[in-house]
Amino acid sequence: MRKFCYFFVILFYAGTAYGADPLPSWNNTDTKSAIVAYVTAVTTQGSARFVSVPRRIAVFDIDGTLMLEKPVFLQGLFLESLVKQKVIENPALAENPDYKALLEKKSWPEYLAHTPLESIMRLYYDTHTGMTQEEFTAMARRFLRPFYNRSIVYQPMAELLSYLRSKQFKIYLVTGSETQFVRAFSQEFFNVPPEQVIGTSWKSELKEIEKDKDVEVMRLPATNIYNDKRQKVLEIEERIGRKPIFAAGNDGNGGDIAMLRYTTQAGGFGLVVVHNDWERERAYTDKDGMTQKAAAKFGWTLARVRSDWKRLFPGYDRQATSQ
Amino acid sequence: MRKFCYFFVILFYAGTAYGADPLPSWNNTDTKSAIVAYVTAVTTQGSARFVSVPRRIAVFDIDGTLMLEKPVFLQGLFLESLVKQKVIENPALAENPDYKALLEKKSWPEYLAHTPLESIMRLYYDTHTGMTQEEFTAMARRFLRPFYNRSIVYQPMAELLSYLRSKQFKIYLVTGSETQFVRAFSQEFFNVPPEQVIGTSWKSELKEIEKDKDVEVMRLPATNIYNDKRQKVLEIEERIGRKPIFAAGNDGNGGDIAMLRYTTQAGGFGLVVVHNDWERERAYTDKDGMTQKAAAKFGWTLARVRSDWKRLFPGYDRQATSQ
Repeated sequence: MRKFCYFFVILFYAGTAYGADPLPSWNNTDTKSAIVAYVTAVTTQGSARFVSVPRRIAVFDIDGTLMLEKPVFLQGLFLESLVKQKVIENPALAENPDYKALLEKKSWPEYLAHTPLESIMRLYYDTHTGMTQEEFTAMARRFLRPFYNRSIVYQPMAELLSYLRSKQFKIYLVTGSETQFVRAFSQEFFNVPPEQVIGTSWKSELKEIEKDKDVEVMRLPATNIYNDKRQKVLEIEERIGRKPIFAAGNDGNGGDIAMLRYTTQAGGFGLVVVHNDWERERAYTDKDGMTQKAAAKFGWTLARVRSDWKRLFPGYDRQATSQ
Repeated sequence: MRKFCYFFVILFYAGTAYGADPLPSWNNTDTKSAIVAYVTAVTTQGSARFVSVPRRIAVFDIDGTLMLEKPVFLQGLFLESLVKQKVIENPALAENPDYKALLEKKSWPEYLAHTPLESIMRLYYDTHTGMTQEEFTAMARRFLRPFYNRSIVYQPMAELLSYLRSKQFKIYLVTGSETQFVRAFSQEFFNVPPEQVIGTSWKSELKEIEKDKDVEVMRLPATNIYNDKRQKVLEIEERIGRKPIFAAGNDGNGGDIAMLRYTTQAGGFGLVVVHNDWERERAYTDKDGMTQKAAAKFGWTLARVRSDWKRLFPGYDRQATSQ
């Protein structure tokens, strides 16, 4: 009986990971201290800022926040692979202006900057819709196989997700990428289940495949939700129905400002990844400095890749040289 | 140390409620046996039908399934109270045909049967939108206060929710009522948190209340999602992204057939509440018997109020007399 009891006690200490650094890939800068101080304050019983477990909602942007988005975000790469496949099946498509624009682009940033959104959307509709959800997921998983080693996931952010989870936060991915596409890697990359993914989605319909046989969800060529900027807040409200107390986004296109404001206005924590490291990845920022200006005004914490992150990717240990 | 250890053991047994009947308000009929047999099969390690915890998703309709909907569903009663309040503030509204139809109705069933949906929707827009989510929630909670004693919640279904939860099911409410309205009682009535409510919703926008001040979600007079019939499946797919393995709806208007088919086609359990008890509540059914026909065709289990439920409401113990 006594041995049995020690077992519980050991389990308890193992569970709290007492004394271990929860964020080993972060340098010991103010940013790391600010994160740990906030998380400790809201999860320590008796603290003035204590937040009960059901209210520990955290929202994370994906592309540029949890993983690489330059030179191209993961769903863009998937789109390109499907477009190329379609052209192999039907070579006439190579003359279609939408296809031509993508296939003959100089670079992804140049393509995204100069192509009308409708042209890109037509390619999405052609390649991402017209099949059932299950058929789409199978396609996505085939494409994603080489990425399941998490080689494009920022290691410091993966540690932050684990740290928050160990403190009983519920983590939602709030992304401009498509919900169903993200669900094909959310568990593998981030340990986030499908019901905690909030993204862009196409319209859909329920179809009876055969009289009195299975009903299936068919993907239709029209946008249901384009989950960017303000829409991210509306979807958080619609689907979660509570204000998050932790939000993370990135400097790059202003896509996370609304979500960060919504989270921090009532005292939540806002974190902004700033891509300022030319050596270890591409560096980039908002054209007009919008996100960093908002960060200064509303008191968000910056995670500067160059100075705050010790390593970027798992197993890749090269340090940033002096600034 | 030894005492400390006994404490864990006692907690463990208390947690499993070993030997206790999890459904005491259900009669010992085939329906109760079928529910217990299914739940046991999918939650017993080693069983051929074992389902891992993250996949234990259950979806429940609310009105007529978890609580009374006759003579009027809860949100209808709320609508009526707001309409009356508006007329007190502005007596001219009594002459507005939409208001007149509701105020001078003979009965709720008659009103619902003979009023165009657009007329009802205009009343919803007038009374339910034009304020922030937080303002609306405060209004709803004032109205709901007398109901928080759960006197309109079916006790057998409350026990079923607790039973499923004790077996680590995650319960979603999938309802035609409005998401935000339901969130104002989902915890109090059913122990379901806001992020597990999927309902009808209005369009909304994010508004900056004052320059550089808080952003708030404003409710707009237009329908975003009307969550009935096939839409329920599309929203389950959109928000949960997994097929439920347990679905419960009711005979009455065919609103849950699609959701039940979607759940049971891959082996999930379908439960249909049949309101056949004239003595203890109102009895009613689909006009054309659609739900019961589907139940027979697809093998769903019926929960007949008259014979399967020992008591309907907490503390109300009158038994149904012989059939």
